[in-house]
Amino acid sequence: MTSAPASAKTLTATEIASMLGGELVGDSDVQFSQVQGIKNAQANEVAFFMSTPNEMGQHPSDQDFQAMRDSTAGLLLVDANCPAPTHCHIKVDNPSLAATIMAQFWQCRRAQYAAGIHPSAVIEDGAQVAASAYIGPQCVIGKNSTVGENCVLYASVVLYDNVHLGDACVIQANTTIGADGFGYNWDGKQHQHMPQIGGVRIGRGVEIGANCCIDAGTFEPTEIGDGCIFDNQVQIGHNSKIGRFVIMCGQVGISGSACIGDGAMFAGKSGAAGHLHVGAGAKIAARAAVMSEVKPGQTVAGQPAVDIKLHQRMMAMMRRNARR
Amino acid sequence: MTSAPASAKTLTATEIASMLGGELVGDSDVQFSQVQGIKNAQANEVAFFMSTPNEMGQHPSDQDFQAMRDSTAGLLLVDANCPAPTHCHIKVDNPSLAATIMAQFWQCRRAQYAAGIHPSAVIEDGAQVAASAYIGPQCVIGKNSTVGENCVLYASVVLYDNVHLGDACVIQANTTIGADGFGYNWDGKQHQHMPQIGGVRIGRGVEIGANCCIDAGTFEPTEIGDGCIFDNQVQIGHNSKIGRFVIMCGQVGISGSACIGDGAMFAGKSGAAGHLHVGAGAKIAARAAVMSEVKPGQTVAGQPAVDIKLHQRMMAMMRRNARR
Amino acid sequence: MTSAPASAKTLTATEIASMLGGELVGDSDVQFSQVQGIKNAQANEVAFFMSTPNEMGQHPSDQDFQAMRDSTAGLLLVDANCPAPTHCHIKVDNPSLAATIMAQFWQCRRAQYAAGIHPSAVIEDGAQVAASAYIGPQCVIGKNSTVGENCVLYASVVLYDNVHLGDACVIQANTTIGADGFGYNWDGKQHQHMPQIGGVRIGRGVEIGANCCIDAGTFEPTEIGDGCIFDNQVQIGHNSKIGRFVIMCGQVGISGSACIGDGAMFAGKSGAAGHLHVGAGAKIAARAAVMSEVKPGQTVAGQPAVDIKLHQRMMAMMRRNARR
Repeated sequence: MTSAPASAKTLTATEIASMLGGELVGDSDVQFSQVQGIKNAQANEVAFFMSTPNEMGQHPSDQDFQAMRDSTAGLLLVDANCPAPTHCHIKVDNPSLAATIMAQFWQCRRAQYAAGIHPSAVIEDGAQVAASAYIGPQCVIGKNSTVGENCVLYASVVLYDNVHLGDACVIQANTTIGADGFGYNWDGKQHQHMPQIGGVRIGRGVEIGANCCIDAGTFEPTEIGDGCIFDNQVQIGHNSKIGRFVIMCGQVGISGSACIGDGAMFAGKSGAAGHLHVGAGAKIAARAAVMSEVKPGQTVAGQPAVDIKLHQRMMAMMRRNARR
Repeated sequence: MTSAPASAKTLTATEIASMLGGELVGDSDVQFSQVQGIKNAQANEVAFFMSTPNEMGQHPSDQDFQAMRDSTAGLLLVDANCPAPTHCHIKVDNPSLAATIMAQFWQCRRAQYAAGIHPSAVIEDGAQVAASAYIGPQCVIGKNSTVGENCVLYASVVLYDNVHLGDACVIQANTTIGADGFGYNWDGKQHQHMPQIGGVRIGRGVEIGANCCIDAGTFEPTEIGDGCIFDNQVQIGHNSKIGRFVIMCGQVGISGSACIGDGAMFAGKSGAAGHLHVGAGAKIAARAAVMSEVKPGQTVAGQPAVDIKLHQRMMAMMRRNARR
Repeated sequence: MTSAPASAKTLTATEIASMLGGELVGDSDVQFSQVQGIKNAQANEVAFFMSTPNEMGQHPSDQDFQAMRDSTAGLLLVDANCPAPTHCHIKVDNPSLAATIMAQFWQCRRAQYAAGIHPSAVIEDGAQVAASAYIGPQCVIGKNSTVGENCVLYASVVLYDNVHLGDACVIQANTTIGADGFGYNWDGKQHQHMPQIGGVRIGRGVEIGANCCIDAGTFEPTEIGDGCIFDNQVQIGHNSKIGRFVIMCGQVGISGSACIGDGAMFAGKSGAAGHLHVGAGAKIAARAAVMSEVKPGQTVAGQPAVDIKLHQRMMAMMRRNARR
């Protein structure tokens, strides 16, 4: 396995504990330069372990605990409840977040991309790209579009005309932003396309996966709020208004003119029909098809999506009756 | 918000009424140059309002009516049943279609793209591109493929070899047409790929969204009929025969060798298994999984898809029994 | 219809029978140079016919048998049970596989692409491309990535950094391999992205469709085993371990850290949640949502996926009760 090269910026265990605001147990004079997985980490590397359930609700297994005890990592980041390892370790509130912070310090992929525009990229007339942004190979930036400070656009990203990215956005490869919204009127002989001139407005710190599509609005822009994170192959219809810090997992589809509240979470392959509201903090289960309003904080599941408790009763009823 | 620039081609209310064949009520000496949304339209802009239910079956709300009355648009396009606004207005059969016609006159995005081939595009040997077509940045047109008059291919569209686009087609960015169909035979040791040499044949006036895939046929071409409209991330398997004016919403998937009748409509994330027929004018509900023949004009829903009435009874039964 | 040009490499019926290890019935002095569909094949072309059910379980229809009898093909490849046609024909175990072998001999699309790197492709520093590989127009090969012997990358494929393709892989257009895995930690104010430095490791003879996404692993590579075949718009989350000869049909989605056994088969739009095991040879029905472990050889269906027999009873119960 090819490992990523170690960073030149080394830190001691004491310095790391200080950065993380954690309690250092044991000591070490090793100069650390990388975060690594717990099974592969070496003496000059940092690994993390959580003794609490992960975001899937799964508890670490006995093998996981054994892997922690057997780890050859020079430093472990653990939670306060973790049975103390014999390793030099730092107790932190959230070991996964702590590892993320250290990995961003040492291994941030984006740091590998110097600011600038790859010579194979096409920047159309009137487009404005901040000097600190990175525009990757084969990208296309349309007319009158803007790319904010410290944005990273990986290869073959296409921004149409009138697409505006706030600062610190990251767009993965082969994603399309600002394509014509899907708006047609039948004239008795054929489908007439309504011109879609509203463009797209994306906030600050938005991260969008590979091969995603975010369509231009008809008259007003399609909007994506600050801090949203979208996985691959997500599709956002025209005129949708997506709030801040919304999470969309892979292959989610949102129809046109949907309004999604701050912090809502859409699990894989879920979606929402057009022209409806999903409240702030709502949770949409994997595959759920939202066909009517979802209240703030509500969790829904199923096709069509209903409250998770009703959905669970429906599923239990089906299994029960099928066994008769 | 950056608005699209106004067109240089101005029209009076009388001229617009004449173009649309509608009844002008009130008068105005304003020179109009743009269609705009009803909340943002200004005195020299045209907006539209429908007092009847939209394509989702939703009636306009009291707020919508209020927005219409409060609009600062200089001219409204309304249906005959609409409570007459105090604005200068034109009564038409279909205000949405009327607005589309006017927007196409003034704001047609395609008009922004002069005919020609972007210098970054790659045109392989033997490909033929009509002089009036626009081929965007980073596109690839394969060997012996043809692009008809007035086609628009946005950025990074890939046509493989032997792909034929009729006149006036529009293909959004990052779409792939003519990739190898998914045809394999297991030889006891590995999957052997059947060469797919049939190419793709696309009719006149077809509009295909971003990040779509239409595969090449094995021996004969995969076919898409005149006037079809596909939203983003649609997938069409090899050897499928799609009729004319078929609508496919986002993330629809059609397996190989399907045969879809004229005017069929597939809602979001629906799909069809291979080797089966969907009749003309059939309606496939969102998420529906067509696993057997659908009759002409039939509406189906569910996974597997069944007639919409049976599906509704199944859903009602589930809710009823789950509540016991 | 534009037919693919005939190959210059002609074969007699005797030579073909010898290549396939089949029994030649009748004789012919024709020089054959192409496989073609049974309805269009001409006197110098070879067609195939299977009298047994296809992979969908569908028996050939009376019309199919008639088309076989009416075929103007100069040579037929048939199974031993097929009512003997009057044509010169060769009896083989698997006519579809036999046709594939002949089509690969004559019509292999890949043979049309000479080894080499298209001048519009971007090869980043440290990338290594085998001399026999073909890298199509507008492709991007990231730093320290490797492409094995006889690979074919169609247009606009993006390999990020640290992506490794074994020999004889075929990647269709607009596919993204090695994008940042979807790994974030909420820090109380925003989602912090965990750097994803593990890259991707793809085995030998893997074929991946158009507009697919295979994400980079966090610390260790995401792995795809030898001989896997994926259709279009497949999404594979970070750190997943996909075994050998796995089949994924269109629009399948696999979440992060999934572990899929050799020879498993995912039908269209199916998927699996993260951090779980699917046993070798398991079959996942179209649309099935795997939310818990699947045993080796088990067939599952439904959302959430359950054993196919339970699923069938659930569906039957629903129809039965809905009709009351």
